[in-house]
Amino acid sequence: MKSISVVRNVLEANDRIAEQNRALFDENGLFVINLMSSPGAGKTTLLEKTIDALRGEMEIGVIEGDVQSSHDAERIAHKDIDVVQINTGGACHLDGNMIRDTFDAFDFKRLNLLIVENVGNLVCPAEFKVGEDVKVMILSVTEGEDKPVKYPLMFRESTVLLINKTDLLPYLDCKVEDIRREALKINPDMTIFEVSCKTGEGLEAWFGWLRDRVKKE
Amino acid sequence: MKSISVVRNVLEANDRIAEQNRALFDENGLFVINLMSSPGAGKTTLLEKTIDALRGEMEIGVIEGDVQSSHDAERIAHKDIDVVQINTGGACHLDGNMIRDTFDAFDFKRLNLLIVENVGNLVCPAEFKVGEDVKVMILSVTEGEDKPVKYPLMFRESTVLLINKTDLLPYLDCKVEDIRREALKINPDMTIFEVSCKTGEGLEAWFGWLRDRVKKE
Repeated sequence: MKSISVVRNVLEANDRIAEQNRALFDENGLFVINLMSSPGAGKTTLLEKTIDALRGEMEIGVIEGDVQSSHDAERIAHKDIDVVQINTGGACHLDGNMIRDTFDAFDFKRLNLLIVENVGNLVCPAEFKVGEDVKVMILSVTEGEDKPVKYPLMFRESTVLLINKTDLLPYLDCKVEDIRREALKINPDMTIFEVSCKTGEGLEAWFGWLRDRVKKE
Repeated sequence: MKSISVVRNVLEANDRIAEQNRALFDENGLFVINLMSSPGAGKTTLLEKTIDALRGEMEIGVIEGDVQSSHDAERIAHKDIDVVQINTGGACHLDGNMIRDTFDAFDFKRLNLLIVENVGNLVCPAEFKVGEDVKVMILSVTEGEDKPVKYPLMFRESTVLLINKTDLLPYLDCKVEDIRREALKINPDMTIFEVSCKTGEGLEAWFGWLRDRVKKE
């Protein structure tokens, strides 16, 4: 059982670092989101739409996590937003240490909202806190309604589920009510938004949820 | 750099077990596929279609890997095929040991083709051999053309790429030629099939590829 105790120690060590990150974020009145999903579910597009909608009301910073490439950070940099790219170099999730290593690049006093886009992966990111206030996950309707039962930890850990790509529903066998029901079975407290980041449908409710939580001084 | 050496040892230990698995598969004339993709890209549906098409020509066995649930194994069991479900209980990939633990459940002498459906994850499964002859990956067109550059290891390791859900292309901004070009940049030797597991379009070429490789005695 040696490997299991190693994993537990790694998680406990990470929890301590994440708590320190969180304390620093709290001092600065910063609301922090750990944004997670499978590859290609629409995290970066959601970020682009969210920045476009809220940039006049609050100061937003972004941390982009990817195994490799700076593709996503370049997309966000076009929005003239403070963004840092983390390349995990093989690791399938972000952890507290990686987030701490970005601190020099931000002026947290100036920011109201920090969104951490995790590595595209429905498994491990849910295990590693980074110092977030809440975990938010995206599921694309193309992924199917069996994902909550097959990847329960992420659904259990997430405060918000955005069901994305609803514009594709007419062309799929998957029903959004089935995703909703299966997700609520795993986590009855989840706040669920049905959205299309492509058409913008449903995003206003997500923006409203954010507005209610981000302190603007 | 302690953590890196731990990871290296784990991978080396796994490689040795995978080689032993492979030797046993070879003795039994079994062709073994390690099937990988993001969650919801269509691995289980591809399996169902492949079993339906080839069951009269060869004996097929399946190992289903999931973090949790026996949903996929139940789908395959409906096909009256030998199938074993592995629940990794948190681990985001299968490894050689987990595969070895299923051996009692199979009569390998009777089988010609064993397909191992890995945990839905575009990162870690590519690092852990299970004893396969080839790695085959699926990418859904809904995931976008930036996946090869963001998740290069899996594209580099895979002999075959199935680009799935082509029936959705009319409703997406993503172009299949862009996925193809980006994938070949990472791995110029990849064999690529464009398929729709829903409509069946393009699957005949995949079945033909399998027929050419599986020994039937």
